[in-house]
Amino acid sequence: MTLNQITLIGVGLIGGSFVLDLKRQRLVRTVIGIDTRPANLERALERRVIDTAASQITPQAVRNSDLVLIATPVAALPAICQALAPLLSARTIVSDVGSTKQSALAAFAQHLPQHYPRCVAGHPIAGSDRSGALAARFGLYQGKKLILCPHEQQDSGSLNTVAALWQSIGAQVHQMTAAEHDRIFAAVSHFPHLLAFAYVHQMLDHPQGARYLQFAGSGFRDFTRIAASSPEMWRDIALANRDSLLQLIGEQKQQLDKLERSLKNRNAQELHDYFQAAQQLREEWGDTH
Amino acid sequence: MTLNQITLIGVGLIGGSFVLDLKRQRLVRTVIGIDTRPANLERALERRVIDTAASQITPQAVRNSDLVLIATPVAALPAICQALAPLLSARTIVSDVGSTKQSALAAFAQHLPQHYPRCVAGHPIAGSDRSGALAARFGLYQGKKLILCPHEQQDSGSLNTVAALWQSIGAQVHQMTAAEHDRIFAAVSHFPHLLAFAYVHQMLDHPQGARYLQFAGSGFRDFTRIAASSPEMWRDIALANRDSLLQLIGEQKQQLDKLERSLKNRNAQELHDYFQAAQQLREEWGDTH
Repeated sequence: MTLNQITLIGVGLIGGSFVLDLKRQRLVRTVIGIDTRPANLERALERRVIDTAASQITPQAVRNSDLVLIATPVAALPAICQALAPLLSARTIVSDVGSTKQSALAAFAQHLPQHYPRCVAGHPIAGSDRSGALAARFGLYQGKKLILCPHEQQDSGSLNTVAALWQSIGAQVHQMTAAEHDRIFAAVSHFPHLLAFAYVHQMLDHPQGARYLQFAGSGFRDFTRIAASSPEMWRDIALANRDSLLQLIGEQKQQLDKLERSLKNRNAQELHDYFQAAQQLREEWGDTH
Repeated sequence: MTLNQITLIGVGLIGGSFVLDLKRQRLVRTVIGIDTRPANLERALERRVIDTAASQITPQAVRNSDLVLIATPVAALPAICQALAPLLSARTIVSDVGSTKQSALAAFAQHLPQHYPRCVAGHPIAGSDRSGALAARFGLYQGKKLILCPHEQQDSGSLNTVAALWQSIGAQVHQMTAAEHDRIFAAVSHFPHLLAFAYVHQMLDHPQGARYLQFAGSGFRDFTRIAASSPEMWRDIALANRDSLLQLIGEQKQQLDKLERSLKNRNAQELHDYFQAAQQLREEWGDTH
């Protein structure tokens, strides 16, 4: 399976690394990169992440592609689908890499209704603190998980093509519904980000916070690393996965209530057992990751 | 300033690394290690972390020392002080390395009342996931902070000797009251541990938690690293710093209430600004650490 042409919308770490590996394996002949950042496009051309650059979605940049991969922030997806709608040829597959999948399917269904069967919602579980075309690198997806969320009108050929491309660059492909995907990633990714932001905000609101942080060490550093993430990206994810996150916030408040009771009662055994159960789960997980 | 003899009670990462560097710099002639774990003592002797080993606190192990450094879990401090009380010579300095300092001063005052002026409460800000004598290493304290909490009856000579020893192995010595120390470390260390335990517990209580965790990535890994810490140690710290932690739990619930409101109202601007303020603080901190 070799593709003649891919259009990559959003030439950053995630999309750039995808096409770099495909090009190295000669699984695609030409990559057209579309990006609103001119300097970013130039770097992508220099590093041969892409072969041709465009600053906006044009008929020439789209119509002959086998695959259009949308690798922008999730909030941009509806407008991009609207722009693509009149330009796609019937055989072109459309896919994305966003962190929330019900919102992706909703955008595909609403703005590309004719094309919906050939729209494949995907999410590679690989990130980095770095971003932009310069961050793109070979082998990013080797051994990483890639989730595909087929929908009720899914064309199986499109699904299989996207799965095969990711597999060929080393990803382990998992399939699940978009609803399950969003519940899972709310729990293991999105909610920890919210908690890290909330904890750092607590320091910000504290009158002595700035002084206190001078004494923060490696535990603080690791615990709050994800609070250095893009506010725009997390605003969009939080809104797109709102219901699951509201439930998780409620559950976390119950955990804090439980800890509060144990502390108020000075119940050493309860505290020990609570910490131990969490420690064991974390160590079991760590042994397999 | 060269010490003739140090007695190290608890021969692990923290105390072992302290005496290793002092020995290398010839700032101490002999180190007697006391530890309840025979295998750990043997390794400490083999690696020359200590020169002599004892399995319990005896007159011979203590009476001629210039410094007795207690580097055990914090909950053991009162019983150790009781055992030391009849054995200390008047000139011996007693110090510790525990994470809560009001409880350390209380143990010193209660169990070593005659000796209290020569008791120096200390806390080096250096840790590691590793523990035991094998984890001890040269240079652990280079550039790290070391907090001393002088009390109202403090003998200044004892304080200065302990400060000079830590400085000589590269630590930056800070002084503050034990109450301020405990407030600071509740905020920047103890409470993040509680939050990490509470979040992992949330996954444990979730019916699908085990399956969900298969999809957890590097964000989860870093955010929960501190939840793999010793339950005994964190039980003791939580109880010793209970009042500050109860206040922080209450403040965190207010942060979660605020997030909950923004999400319920789908207030994109509020969410963005909330995340951005936290991100900026975390990035500023990261630039200096």
